[in-house]
Amino acid sequence: MLSIETCTTGIVGLGLMGGAFAYALRDCKAQSILAYDISGETLASALKQGCIDEGFTTPQPMLCRCDLVFLCLAPSSLIRFMQEHIYSFKSGALLSDIAGIKGSIVAALESILRDDLDFIPGHPMTGSEKGGFAYAKNCSFKGKNYILTPLERNKPENLAFLKGLIRRFGFSRITETNPADHDRKIAFTSQLCHVIAAALIDCQSDTGITRFGGGSFEDLTRIAQLNAPLWAELFIENSAELLMRIEEFEGSLNTIKTLIADENRTALVTMLQAVRDRRAAMDS
Amino acid sequence: MLSIETCTTGIVGLGLMGGAFAYALRDCKAQSILAYDISGETLASALKQGCIDEGFTTPQPMLCRCDLVFLCLAPSSLIRFMQEHIYSFKSGALLSDIAGIKGSIVAALESILRDDLDFIPGHPMTGSEKGGFAYAKNCSFKGKNYILTPLERNKPENLAFLKGLIRRFGFSRITETNPADHDRKIAFTSQLCHVIAAALIDCQSDTGITRFGGGSFEDLTRIAQLNAPLWAELFIENSAELLMRIEEFEGSLNTIKTLIADENRTALVTMLQAVRDRRAAMDS
Repeated sequence: MLSIETCTTGIVGLGLMGGAFAYALRDCKAQSILAYDISGETLASALKQGCIDEGFTTPQPMLCRCDLVFLCLAPSSLIRFMQEHIYSFKSGALLSDIAGIKGSIVAALESILRDDLDFIPGHPMTGSEKGGFAYAKNCSFKGKNYILTPLERNKPENLAFLKGLIRRFGFSRITETNPADHDRKIAFTSQLCHVIAAALIDCQSDTGITRFGGGSFEDLTRIAQLNAPLWAELFIENSAELLMRIEEFEGSLNTIKTLIADENRTALVTMLQAVRDRRAAMDS
Repeated sequence: MLSIETCTTGIVGLGLMGGAFAYALRDCKAQSILAYDISGETLASALKQGCIDEGFTTPQPMLCRCDLVFLCLAPSSLIRFMQEHIYSFKSGALLSDIAGIKGSIVAALESILRDDLDFIPGHPMTGSEKGGFAYAKNCSFKGKNYILTPLERNKPENLAFLKGLIRRFGFSRITETNPADHDRKIAFTSQLCHVIAAALIDCQSDTGITRFGGGSFEDLTRIAQLNAPLWAELFIENSAELLMRIEEFEGSLNTIKTLIADENRTALVTMLQAVRDRRAAMDS
């Protein structure tokens, strides 16, 4: 089995998440942390911070040395990167990604993958409304969820190693499922929530409205400070599931609207009480 | 002008907010803090905590002694209370409330008020998904907003005193406006957000979904653990404004849905970027 203290680890893309992985690997006493990024400036900053040992602005010289690679790119960049650089990976390497959609990505990558590479698709459920390496240090893994959608061909010892490492990073719950289930659930917990936050800001032009805020509005719209190209990509790539979730939400919204318009206080109280109970039954 | 160190203060209703006022008054070295509540148990608990000096299960013996009274009741209870007990207040007393809607409440109260009482309508923009006196100690005022909708007849020295006290409580921004403007804006920042959170929970029956949460869903739905009767009342009392805000939100949601369905990535990125910029221009 791999050991983080002895293997060479590479990070592809030193943005918010790639940077957060670098810091987490450093905390785990990783033996050697290499990083590829198109920005020499970002690599210099990471070297100065001490969270990587070497930086690369071309992938090949790094990939050929790495036993473990975290691919920290947006979905479309990830597929392009793998198409272009699949022959640069070290034979036997373990790869994992962080893409927020899994069905289409995993299907595309499986068709590209070499037989001697073990790719375990992953999705760390963390992030920040502030993107880029500069904010990576504040991107916490502690207590967060991590979803894996392992392939049948994955080596059990690699899966065990990756799960152990994810726990050492601080994530508290690791869920294994298939890509379709991941995309269905993420469309709800993540994408629908971002759509709602965006719609809430879109329908309010008064930026002084926060003088009237009591915390709810702020909580609901913090994520509206999103990385627009990344989220547009996630929304469209998972559009079938997301559109269904939006319509289900619209149905519930309409139910509440009707109860309010009808001034049906009894039914409204019953419904809100059921909502309260269901939310209480969910983990925070 | 009144002085909190020398006047007698009464709190009507020792729930979450009434309790939070009691603790805040105690921190301000209030001379004498009296409280009326229907629950003798709650009063005993508050006495034990040291945040009130005397508890009353009937209002009259307390009200006749108070120079300053905070009415911490839900809107409908507030109107009933004032109708029943308006002749118990001490002549010259300053009163304020905490009701989350102002138009209908202030109109009703103005018709009940005695000429020798000065009532300044207020709305502290704070709270918690956990209600009741037991949670009052954790209900923070620090950095929160406070809205006042003063009446023309309010005495300037009483308004100045109340604003000074609110600042000493820890609130950072006090906004003065009229009841209609309050209700229009609160329909957006507070009520619409609670409606959205409730709809989001209503359309998801899987309580295990939080294994797939990354923080967004949790942030958007924390307020779904609401006090059902209170919020049903607030929604229905402010239904005209709230229904307009829900419809504006539905319009924006529909715009995003159409962009996703059309896979119009360019327009979606432009729209999300505008959302991001607008949210960034708002205070957190």
